[in-house]
Amino acid sequence: MLTRADLEALDATDPLACHRDAFTLPGGVIYLDGNSLGPLPRATPSRLAEVAEQDWGDGLIRSWNRAGWIDLPAKVGDKIARLIGAAPGEVIVTDSTSVNLFKALAGALRLAGDRRIILTEAENFPTDLYMMQGLVEWLGARHAVRAVAAEDIGGALDDDTAVLALTHVNYRSGAMHDMAALTRRCHERGALALWDLSHSAGAMPLDLAGADVDLAVGCGYKYLNGGPGAPAFLYVARRHHDSFRQPLSGWLGHADPFAFEGTYRPAPGIARGLTGTPPILSLAALEVGVDLLLSCDLTEARKKSMRLTDCFVQLVEERCGGHDLLLLSPRAAGGRGSQVSFRHPAGYPVMQSLIARGVIGDFRAPDILRFGLAPLYLRYVDVWDAVSALSDVLATRVWDRPEYRVRAAVT
Amino acid sequence: MLTRADLEALDATDPLACHRDAFTLPGGVIYLDGNSLGPLPRATPSRLAEVAEQDWGDGLIRSWNRAGWIDLPAKVGDKIARLIGAAPGEVIVTDSTSVNLFKALAGALRLAGDRRIILTEAENFPTDLYMMQGLVEWLGARHAVRAVAAEDIGGALDDDTAVLALTHVNYRSGAMHDMAALTRRCHERGALALWDLSHSAGAMPLDLAGADVDLAVGCGYKYLNGGPGAPAFLYVARRHHDSFRQPLSGWLGHADPFAFEGTYRPAPGIARGLTGTPPILSLAALEVGVDLLLSCDLTEARKKSMRLTDCFVQLVEERCGGHDLLLLSPRAAGGRGSQVSFRHPAGYPVMQSLIARGVIGDFRAPDILRFGLAPLYLRYVDVWDAVSALSDVLATRVWDRPEYRVRAAVT
Repeated sequence: MLTRADLEALDATDPLACHRDAFTLPGGVIYLDGNSLGPLPRATPSRLAEVAEQDWGDGLIRSWNRAGWIDLPAKVGDKIARLIGAAPGEVIVTDSTSVNLFKALAGALRLAGDRRIILTEAENFPTDLYMMQGLVEWLGARHAVRAVAAEDIGGALDDDTAVLALTHVNYRSGAMHDMAALTRRCHERGALALWDLSHSAGAMPLDLAGADVDLAVGCGYKYLNGGPGAPAFLYVARRHHDSFRQPLSGWLGHADPFAFEGTYRPAPGIARGLTGTPPILSLAALEVGVDLLLSCDLTEARKKSMRLTDCFVQLVEERCGGHDLLLLSPRAAGGRGSQVSFRHPAGYPVMQSLIARGVIGDFRAPDILRFGLAPLYLRYVDVWDAVSALSDVLATRVWDRPEYRVRAAVT
Repeated sequence: MLTRADLEALDATDPLACHRDAFTLPGGVIYLDGNSLGPLPRATPSRLAEVAEQDWGDGLIRSWNRAGWIDLPAKVGDKIARLIGAAPGEVIVTDSTSVNLFKALAGALRLAGDRRIILTEAENFPTDLYMMQGLVEWLGARHAVRAVAAEDIGGALDDDTAVLALTHVNYRSGAMHDMAALTRRCHERGALALWDLSHSAGAMPLDLAGADVDLAVGCGYKYLNGGPGAPAFLYVARRHHDSFRQPLSGWLGHADPFAFEGTYRPAPGIARGLTGTPPILSLAALEVGVDLLLSCDLTEARKKSMRLTDCFVQLVEERCGGHDLLLLSPRAAGGRGSQVSFRHPAGYPVMQSLIARGVIGDFRAPDILRFGLAPLYLRYVDVWDAVSALSDVLATRVWDRPEYRVRAAVT
């Protein structure tokens, strides 16, 4: 049986403990939702003030050059590239994950020639599915989306598969695909591999080059700690750059945006993934989050993340037994991302009650309690304390309280 | 002949003079580029700090509800609606102008049934042209873009025109289309009218309802003073809401985003124009700029803008005669937006030299000097002083200096 002293001992020797202070974490809160919105880096507000007051206020339009705004999508992209095992010039930061996925999917269909099928997982994050549906509906009847269960993906790859588009770590269960193995199977079948890294970038080392990934997108506001709605990123492997095209062909993706030509000519390299003018304030905040991650050892982060989630599972089983909790995440730490999810029939009131006690996870319909365990700012004792709160909430059967019955009916 | 005293007299009775103090304007600068990037509202930095430190830092994920982030695209949209003569629920703020234009164009083609042609002006802003080209190329061979000279637009409308897509005020010349008249002609021919308001929203009162406009997009970082790359807006007239569909069908445009359904169902109303998660920091900054405009009388702003541009033209002709300056903008103030443009064979070094003297306008290839005269923070004497600087620069033939010869060759 694990004790709180065991977890204190882990904290005492945690090589990542020094990073906690780089974040602003409110008192009385154990934050287990960094997989939805990462916390505020301590350095972000002053950087935002600098960009607003100096670069915008004083520099005005001149800051597009002087303050390097025009290069920011590529500059922050190159920094993210280092986090995900890509090369400089392969990643650009712009738009939202959804919009970048549209570009990547459209680009993949074009690269894939006559192949018709976008293959994906039925349990993929909904916006990924919706963007595929939108693309296929609008680009014409020739293409189709095929969504299968996770375990059927390998077998569903065939000669008509243009691209396999998956989220690396599942948003609900935390189950993680084997990116390298599935990408290899794609290539064996002549298909492209497109990965959504929203729930893995920044939480673990990634190796897009080693896995030979064709295209990827990812989110700036989860483990990259870039702030609410932070711009997202788009990766295209260099070998596809010359052939990659995408329909959102805006002026910043033009070969010479300031020549104001009448006809679109795609920029060389990943810059052709750009569309309109990026939101500089949000992009500057994202850069702070990315810089913070670049100062950390992601291999150590992954080790700690696995240990944190292992402790969480073990403690729930030891301390919350007999309460109808069902582990949804893979039991082996190597098979999941940096989160643990449980099903509970009263999941919604349980999570509401936890949040009221300062333990912030989230609820995903219909019955999922989701706990993100981001390794850079969480302590092992936080896991103990969070499970203590969960144990209390379950023991007091909060779902029997009238206020939770009402709330559950509303949801 | 106008004198500086005449302009001082105009400033002394300017009903808008009180608004200048709401902006942070650097000393020694006359800012004539608010049509490219509006200046920093004085209230923006503290609002940004509040959103970052309180809402994000303390509120964390809870701020999507508690701080109203989830409603911000609609809330700021409703505010912009008041600036452009639209009704509540017809405008949403999200993504970039380019991306919103893609949605609006795609939606228009769907609404227009069998009609094939996107009609536009050959001198439209390049990103507008590029997005049309991208859309048509990817939607298949059935549709086409037809780009004609401004004076040929009316005659080019025919039974195959799906949508006339124009920028209200031309980015180079400042020439303004008659929105109501052209929209009426569209409707007479059974076509839709889509307006890009990037160079007019916030600079003058607009009346989309009165003009019966079908769709519109616009920019947040010019006259709305929302900050570099501020999110853009999308307007769809309420009568089209039920039929409007767009291909970037992301989760925030879903009827029930947090139900995490597997199939896209468009949200009712303008919310179906949303795609991914919007950049909240940039959106919060935009709201400050929009609030500032809502406190101003845009009818007075338009009057002052016309007078400022009239003064500018008159003073250039009186004080810079014989220097090869050619007025590119319409001579009648009612026919132009809030800018004046001149051609000059040495336009690039002339503008560089002006900027070095603190008079910030911009240069547009091949030979255009563009001066934006935003009425809320510019004084009439600024026009005098800017023309004084221009007169000096021309009299000293800066283009003969070696440093400008080099720069001109680079551009």
